[in-house]
Amino acid sequence: MASKNLLLLAGDGIGPEAMAEVKKLIAAMNDKLDSGFVTDEGLVGGCAYDAHGAAISDADMAKAMAADAVLFGAVGGPKWDAVPYEVRPEAGLLRLRKDMELFANLRPAICYPALAASSSLKQEVVEGLDILIVRELTGGVYFGEPKQIIDLGNGQKRGIDTQVYDTFEIERISGVAFELARTRKNHVTSMEKRNVMKSGVLWNEVVSQTHKARYADVKLDHMLADAGGMQLVRWPKQFDVIVTDNLFGDMLSDIAAMLTGSIGMLPSASLGAPDAKTKKRKALYEPVHGSAPDIAGKGIANPIAMIASFAMCMRYSFGMVAEADRLESAIAAVLDQGLRTRDILSPGMTEVGTAEMGDAIIARF
Amino acid sequence: MASKNLLLLAGDGIGPEAMAEVKKLIAAMNDKLDSGFVTDEGLVGGCAYDAHGAAISDADMAKAMAADAVLFGAVGGPKWDAVPYEVRPEAGLLRLRKDMELFANLRPAICYPALAASSSLKQEVVEGLDILIVRELTGGVYFGEPKQIIDLGNGQKRGIDTQVYDTFEIERISGVAFELARTRKNHVTSMEKRNVMKSGVLWNEVVSQTHKARYADVKLDHMLADAGGMQLVRWPKQFDVIVTDNLFGDMLSDIAAMLTGSIGMLPSASLGAPDAKTKKRKALYEPVHGSAPDIAGKGIANPIAMIASFAMCMRYSFGMVAEADRLESAIAAVLDQGLRTRDILSPGMTEVGTAEMGDAIIARF
Ligand SMILES: CC(C)[C@H](C(=O)O)[C@@H](O)C(=O)O
Ligand SMILES: CC(C)[C@H](C(=O)O)[C@@H](O)C(=O)O
Repeated sequence: MASKNLLLLAGDGIGPEAMAEVKKLIAAMNDKLDSGFVTDEGLVGGCAYDAHGAAISDADMAKAMAADAVLFGAVGGPKWDAVPYEVRPEAGLLRLRKDMELFANLRPAICYPALAASSSLKQEVVEGLDILIVRELTGGVYFGEPKQIIDLGNGQKRGIDTQVYDTFEIERISGVAFELARTRKNHVTSMEKRNVMKSGVLWNEVVSQTHKARYADVKLDHMLADAGGMQLVRWPKQFDVIVTDNLFGDMLSDIAAMLTGSIGMLPSASLGAPDAKTKKRKALYEPVHGSAPDIAGKGIANPIAMIASFAMCMRYSFGMVAEADRLESAIAAVLDQGLRTRDILSPGMTEVGTAEMGDAIIARF
Repeated sequence: MASKNLLLLAGDGIGPEAMAEVKKLIAAMNDKLDSGFVTDEGLVGGCAYDAHGAAISDADMAKAMAADAVLFGAVGGPKWDAVPYEVRPEAGLLRLRKDMELFANLRPAICYPALAASSSLKQEVVEGLDILIVRELTGGVYFGEPKQIIDLGNGQKRGIDTQVYDTFEIERISGVAFELARTRKNHVTSMEKRNVMKSGVLWNEVVSQTHKARYADVKLDHMLADAGGMQLVRWPKQFDVIVTDNLFGDMLSDIAAMLTGSIGMLPSASLGAPDAKTKKRKALYEPVHGSAPDIAGKGIANPIAMIASFAMCMRYSFGMVAEADRLESAIAAVLDQGLRTRDILSPGMTEVGTAEMGDAIIARF
């Protein structure tokens, strides 16, 4: 069997602790199932800055480009709050996304039945929630130029960022959304601010054209992004797949994640275009949660989002659908059993640490 | 007594119905209290386009510039979905904001006790909620240039918007936030995306400097806007005043409004700088809700947000603090009494139409 090359970039904060549980799982799968995963490791974020003075080194970047998939933990922390903008921890993640051309960010917001009661929203509003946010990840205001601070003199500065979208970028991300909708409830909602932004006008136009030309069987709605944020809070179950730009996707996917009451549980996949010859996509998988420096190193972080990211990796990068399903069921089973890390603890449940949670899931897998 | 000149721009959809209730209230106040309001009217939005081919005419714009305050209803509707971008209904509102230099948008998100149960969030999460979002309203991506769609040939177009903030703009909006915080719980949270946007870096820097130089007595926190959105959903009572830019403010204030379960109830004020001589600020007051074309003309729209906007007008433009307090109490009393328009109806309450709700509030005032 061809080996499956994974690059593990655990990063900062709780990243390494969460990644340790995935490493145990990979070792077990290689051992018992002969799964053929080959792992290498690298540095990203604050730890890379400390080691190399950059948020990711060129050598690690080259490893990422060559790997079949990258597993990413989390980056950042107060230790690096004052480092120069160009080498701040997030720059490592942004370079990975840009250089690997990972334009499609898939963020499922699923409400695990065992956790429905722990949302700040009413149980009936979130119970059974299953939406997928498809966020454009390599364009928009994140990367557009000019992006700079100009000194105007007289104590005045000017901060500038540029939102840019080309037709082909909107076409390819909406194609991903429509394709995925066909495997789900066949409904896409596109969100932008066409009433204020020219990029929103183009976004709306291209999504509609793509729909008409190739995906007319899928139900398509358009919503202004501010109204979309409201509707997510009011009645999220009205959505199936949401497709939106980089910045709105950042905001809306975090809000959707919070609705589920399970921000420590949610994975994401960032995918590139299929290679013309091999059909393989470059890919990076990461938890939606951040580096949580306040609880790092205590052995209490929730490893589920990282483990669920590995499930997405098996599903999307290696076609291991049965194994991915099995891993996701193992997570649900352990929750049903009442095991909880501190972030999702509720009365009557059993508190466990990071390693115990990982072990329990591996045992059920 | 000097007359108080109001320009009423009811706009489209439910705007005119809601405004009709404020007109009744103004007539009653002039009658019984000799309040001295003088009203004029104009067109804005789709109705202005139908009449003049522009979303606001120069003549109505001149009236707005001359008025002591503008009361604004709502704009837009499917009828005008296909009109050219430059004359779309929203362009009227954006011109008012820009030409009147209404840089400070105050959006209270208050959870009326009588409505706490009708939020999609758990009652304990929103009960007693009282936050104020101070949104910058004349800068950022709404107005920055270039803002255009370029034809690149080969079927490709490029949509461009530009986010621009200068030091003085950030300084003056944060000054407003700090001043208001001193009249409340003395706590400001500033939100941006400094980890991705240069305008966010400058925003963060200038808010911190303004704080240090003039408002060190106020508690200041910084939060990334995506994390801020999450925290609004998780535990909104952690906030007092939130200060943020035009686009983040658009998203975050809508989400905050939805939390309260009372989107049909929330007013807003948009204020300019005090005139050097007269100390008077240009001002526009509008409900947070939109034009709701689906229920327009049926006499069922909720007029409370429009009436509460007039309360803000009395408070901020005319120093009529006692009257504003009294009007806000009248709204709360009518809700306590069980009267509800359809949008906020719940079991056991009494459904009333727009005019009945307006009459009940006026009777209590
Ligand atoms: C860490 C940061 C740069 C990143 C983003 O803004 O995209 C994060 O918030 C995310 O959503 O993945
Ligand atoms: C109507 C629209 C232009 C406006 C905005 O985006 O500012 C609205 O959403 C608001 O929040 O007042």
